Parts: sequence; structure tokens; C-alpha cells
Amino acid sequence: MEKKEHIPTPAVRRLSLYLRQLELFVGAGRQKISSKQLGTALRLSDAQVRKDLAYFGQFGHPGIGYRVPELIQRLRRILGTDKLSKVLVVGVGNLGRALLSFRGFAKHGFEVVAAFDCDPAKFGEEVPLGSGVRVQSMNELSKVVRHQCIRLGVLTVPALAAQSAAEDMVAAGVRAILNFAPVTLQLKPDISVTSVDLGVHLEQLAFRMSGASLG
Amino acid sequence: MEKKEHIPTPAVRRLSLYLRQLELFVGAGRQKISSKQLGTALRLSDAQVRKDLAYFGQFGHPGIGYRVPELIQRLRRILGTDKLSKVLVVGVGNLGRALLSFRGFAKHGFEVVAAFDCDPAKFGEEVPLGSGVRVQSMNELSKVVRHQCIRLGVLTVPALAAQSAAEDMVAAGVRAILNFAPVTLQLKPDISVTSVDLGVHLEQLAFRMSGASLG
Repeated sequence: MEKKEHIPTPAVRRLSLYLRQLELFVGAGRQKISSKQLGTALRLSDAQVRKDLAYFGQFGHPGIGYRVPELIQRLRRILGTDKLSKVLVVGVGNLGRALLSFRGFAKHGFEVVAAFDCDPAKFGEEVPLGSGVRVQSMNELSKVVRHQCIRLGVLTVPALAAQSAAEDMVAAGVRAILNFAPVTLQLKPDISVTSVDLGVHLEQLAFRMSGASLG
Repeated sequence: MEKKEHIPTPAVRRLSLYLRQLELFVGAGRQKISSKQLGTALRLSDAQVRKDLAYFGQFGHPGIGYRVPELIQRLRRILGTDKLSKVLVVGVGNLGRALLSFRGFAKHGFEVVAAFDCDPAKFGEEVPLGSGVRVQSMNELSKVVRHQCIRLGVLTVPALAAQSAAEDMVAAGVRAILNFAPVTLQLKPDISVTSVDLGVHLEQLAFRMSGASLG
């Protein structure tokens, strides 16, 4: 088995895709699957599927293929989502509210436990209603992160506030940030950052779709 | 100048990042910038910046660098976001509602003009309030797409409904889909699809963060 650091990022990324597809299969009552069937559903070759999984150990059974529930369990353990991870959200605007209400987090092993904003008008508001999560002041960030041992943060503040908010998160103890602000965060290399810029995604689609000539 | 098809996808993707960064610079009153300064802000080399831009033409001025407003305008034209593109949203759950309220779309040249859902309880609801966008039945999709010439769609339905909803969008005339459903859509190759799976992003962060050994 390879050391974690030597596993290529695209292989780890595809692990998530395999897991997602396997969850769909098991939801449809499927118990066994071949690398070819898994690959086809994701538009990948069966060789790619086998190669990716081989980084993490031995999974298949000769003549059977993969046992779906077993493979799901092992992939979740590898990704670290077999136990519930606590997540906080910084920035309770429209997108922050949507993410606080997003059921997909819980489904994939993430529990949103705290929300922060710098607008006092929002302090104390429960988002979503009934969740028990109330918006707190950024001044409380450090205390809450330490108290609840939160390592994962979602950043949904405006672009100009993002770098400073990210630094506050890191200072408080957050180790990984899912960044929705349209900026490149400048943080220490041991902090993991993944950025999701919806404007970028739309622009890429617009570019591929547009018939206009370049120049 | 190269043909559009020959430009590597990562270069097109970085174009969006350059544009985003330039918009921040111009917002801060900056009029001129060097490839080194633009690269540093995005953690890229100045050679990378120059090489990417060279795919699309001649931009810099000797001894001056880039004129920020001019470069912004030209990048927008290249990306096809210098004119307003109409966008529709299929699936008015929490995420759909957030995207309908997301001001970033308008800022980057996208106008959400229609929203669809299959739940009759939502038909006629204005999302967000005051926007003039009212949730319509999926049965209206084809008529609205044709009438308003919409080519770009955002898909925010549950996983099990995604393939069928995407096929409806394509049949209606949508050419590019920003997909938030956690599935790999199987569509004709001339349809552009970009997928944003929030669960995948979080899993990647959890993996990089987790100290657990593999196996």
C-alpha cells in the first residue's frame, strides 16, 4: 500500500466519484459490481478504476467483482468520512444559508455545527429554522472552534472579506477550508484549501458554448 | 492566434481566474499590472500568465505591462461574458433557491431568467422575492427555453432525478449545464457539462486533513 502523500490527487478525487456512484447503486438494490460497470457509469475505463483502487489496497473478489456495501464502507474509511466531521460556516449570506440548509453534507459524513457572520443583525438567528445552529459573532469563532474541535470550515463571505476571514479561521484552529469566495487565499501550505467559484464555472461553460471568434 | 479547440482547458480555466483577480485590482483602483504581479496574486509564475494570454492574442504593452480595464474587457469578450447570458435553474430546493438569489451571476454576465420544479406547491412562487422570476412546471421548460433563447442551465435536483431532468433540458434546447447533482450525466458529446459536487469537495478536504492510515 502506498503512502498517502504519494497518491495522485486525481485518484483521490475519483475515489469520491466511485463512492457517489456506489451509493447510487446500493440505493437501487445492487450488491455486486465489476470495475467495468463502475467505470462505464462514470465514463472511465475499467483499467482506470482498478488502478485507482489499487493505491488503497485489495478490494475485488475473483469471479465476483466488488461487493458494493463493503467497498462503500472501505472508501468512506479511506476518505475519513466514516465518522461524522464537524463543519462551520463563515458568512451567512444567501449562499451560506443554502449551505447551512444543504442536506448533502449530513449524507456524506459532515455535520454543520456553527455559523458565523460579522453583521450583528444576524446574531442569534437560527439557520435553518429548527437546526439548533444560531449565527454567532466572528469574535466567538476562536472559542467555538477550540471548544468543539472543528477542523473544517466553509467560507462564504464576499471577496474583499475572504482573506481576513480565512486567516481568522486558521488562527482559531481550522485546518481545511472549502472556499466559495472568488479569490485565491494566501495561507500556510499546511492548510488545505479547495475553491469553488461559481462564476468561473459559468464562464467556462459560456466560453465552450460561444460561437464567437477569439481575439 | 490559435483555434479555440486547440487551447488547453486549464488555460481557459485560468483565464477566469485572471479575470476575477483583475476585477479585484480594478476595484482597488489599480490601472496597470505586470504578469509577475498578476501571477503572484494567483500563485502562478509570470511565464505561465504570459503563455496563457498568448493563446488569445497580444495584450501587454512594453514597459507598461497590462492595462487592467482593457485586459478585463478583452478577457470578458473571449469568455463570451461581455454580453448578458440568460440562465435557467431546474430544481428549486435549498441550493436552487440560493443560486437564484446569488448576486455573483449578474456580476459575471449571467442573468437568471427562469426557474423550474416538478412540485406543484412551488409553482408561481417568486424566488427570490422581487426578482420577477416565478417557479414554473417542468412542462413549460421547452416553451420557455425556445421563447427566451436560453442556452445555459443550472441543475439542482436530487441525484435520482438529475439524468432525466438534464435530458429534458437538452431536448428543450439547453446546450450547457452546470450540474450540482451528485451524478455523472450521460449526454450527447456536444453538450457542455461542468459538475460541482459539494460532497466530493468536502471529502477531498477530509482526506487531506485526516491523520488516519490507509487500508
